[in-house]
Amino acid sequence: MHFPSLADIQEAHHRIQSFIHRTPLMSSEAINKIAGAEIFFKCENFQKVGAFKARGAANAVSKLGEEEKLNGVATHSSGNHAAALARAATVAGIPSYIVMPSNAPEIKKKAVKGYGGEIIECEPNLQARESTLNEVVAKTGATFIHPYDNIDVVEGQATCALEMWDEGIAFDTIMAPVGGGGLLGGTALTTHYLSPNTKVIAGEPAGADDAFRSFQAKKLIPMQGPNTIADGLLTSLGKINFEIIMQHVDDILTVNDEEIIDAMRLIYERMKIVIEPSCAVPLAALLKNKERFQNQKIGIILSGGNVDLAKLPFK
Amino acid sequence: MHFPSLADIQEAHHRIQSFIHRTPLMSSEAINKIAGAEIFFKCENFQKVGAFKARGAANAVSKLGEEEKLNGVATHSSGNHAAALARAATVAGIPSYIVMPSNAPEIKKKAVKGYGGEIIECEPNLQARESTLNEVVAKTGATFIHPYDNIDVVEGQATCALEMWDEGIAFDTIMAPVGGGGLLGGTALTTHYLSPNTKVIAGEPAGADDAFRSFQAKKLIPMQGPNTIADGLLTSLGKINFEIIMQHVDDILTVNDEEIIDAMRLIYERMKIVIEPSCAVPLAALLKNKERFQNQKIGIILSGGNVDLAKLPFK
Repeated sequence: MHFPSLADIQEAHHRIQSFIHRTPLMSSEAINKIAGAEIFFKCENFQKVGAFKARGAANAVSKLGEEEKLNGVATHSSGNHAAALARAATVAGIPSYIVMPSNAPEIKKKAVKGYGGEIIECEPNLQARESTLNEVVAKTGATFIHPYDNIDVVEGQATCALEMWDEGIAFDTIMAPVGGGGLLGGTALTTHYLSPNTKVIAGEPAGADDAFRSFQAKKLIPMQGPNTIADGLLTSLGKINFEIIMQHVDDILTVNDEEIIDAMRLIYERMKIVIEPSCAVPLAALLKNKERFQNQKIGIILSGGNVDLAKLPFK
Repeated sequence: MHFPSLADIQEAHHRIQSFIHRTPLMSSEAINKIAGAEIFFKCENFQKVGAFKARGAANAVSKLGEEEKLNGVATHSSGNHAAALARAATVAGIPSYIVMPSNAPEIKKKAVKGYGGEIIECEPNLQARESTLNEVVAKTGATFIHPYDNIDVVEGQATCALEMWDEGIAFDTIMAPVGGGGLLGGTALTTHYLSPNTKVIAGEPAGADDAFRSFQAKKLIPMQGPNTIADGLLTSLGKINFEIIMQHVDDILTVNDEEIIDAMRLIYERMKIVIEPSCAVPLAALLKNKERFQNQKIGIILSGGNVDLAKLPFK
């Protein structure tokens, strides 16, 4: 498979930069003290649509040919990719068709509509999702933009690490959460090109640990019945991303939900920022394996901030 | 009364700047659209100890004479000033004595201890608080640093607006919450010196509206039985601050708790940052009086981010 080159990723960044925020790196002395390391959090919770997904969607839409653009884009997602694709399409002046399960939360539907996406409801199961998507694509001629198993999406997500490296910090390790693997794959590629000695390490919920098991087994093992508070990481690892990860990721560490919630609380309390549970997974993994990261400079990507405030897990 | 001059405030900023963060201004397109104005939020929730109180405490401690320093500082507070004074004292290498009601939340006591303050408990009423403080001062010779009715504290809080003006934005209006009035008084002074035509407008909870009533009546009316979710604004307006406010504040707008919670939710959802309910009061006041602020450039001070995560008011 042909992975995006550094020049491709740089071009992607140039292509999408007027559609995204350049998000800040933030640090907390208190968390550094607890971790025994110097951590720089890349705040993609402040990104457009509240998540790094804005990057991949903007890149995929921007790369469509003029013919393709006429028919718009389609996807199935009830999460951040749905909102990101709807927004990217609207900004480009083209239609977007978002297949969502009929039981998706009202707030998610509202977000997609707010960004100008057209929602097509389906029964809440994978088969209905895929068949409905196929129908939509057949009827409209829209281009299907997969949430993570799409090389242009991965190329877009890779721009996040590009901005981190542009800050001039000599990271010993860069950490990201892994669900479908788009962010992790993109981060690993960029870091491989710019600093091959830097370790790229993923955090994954123990209740959705298909990437961990696939990485260990060296073959793609799909996730069945995931169960974790990190609702952004329920999906199975994508094929493209599995290949990148096997080549350029150094390790995948798992953490349980209690560890995720503890790390999430630390970020809310000490950094005063709102993140999704998924974002707390890498910090939880770091704190669980402290000795391994002592005195390192570590970049951690906080992937998004779209959380149901009425359901925060703090007691 | 002699108010701090612009030079005094600038000197205070120079004096404290190695002890505080220069906090960022943040904006949200979504909130601007809702408000019909261009809002710049000064994020004092990211300040040391999680609130602007770090400024006033640092300034008051730094201005003590060498003799005074030996005996340390004392205050009565169960809120952000307690933590801020404890930290400022510890940084200066001097003791701090914090009188707190015996029923103060464990988390607040822990914060003060964590910053190196010595807690002296008292019965949970005003009389016990004042008599205990007097005993502590008599015994230790410590200097009492009032949370807001202290000119050095006000001078320190005034440095927040100094940083805002330093960003080169021509604010039409600057808004702050008002409780004891230290932040509002300092903000009004700085803004009066640097941009006398800019309006300074406070937001206040309807359930603790002594500043509003004092401002209307042109005489200081203490608060009795305050009741609001904005727990940082329960205190009565200080004498010094009342004088500054009568001279340099243009208006005080009140909002009820429902309006405060709505504005708070907007900031969590759209800006992805953690703030105390008190911080949301000025935005609530703006949104309640939208027509008055149309197309203006508005600076809003988000005063702090120390909130009990288990008790967030979102449903």
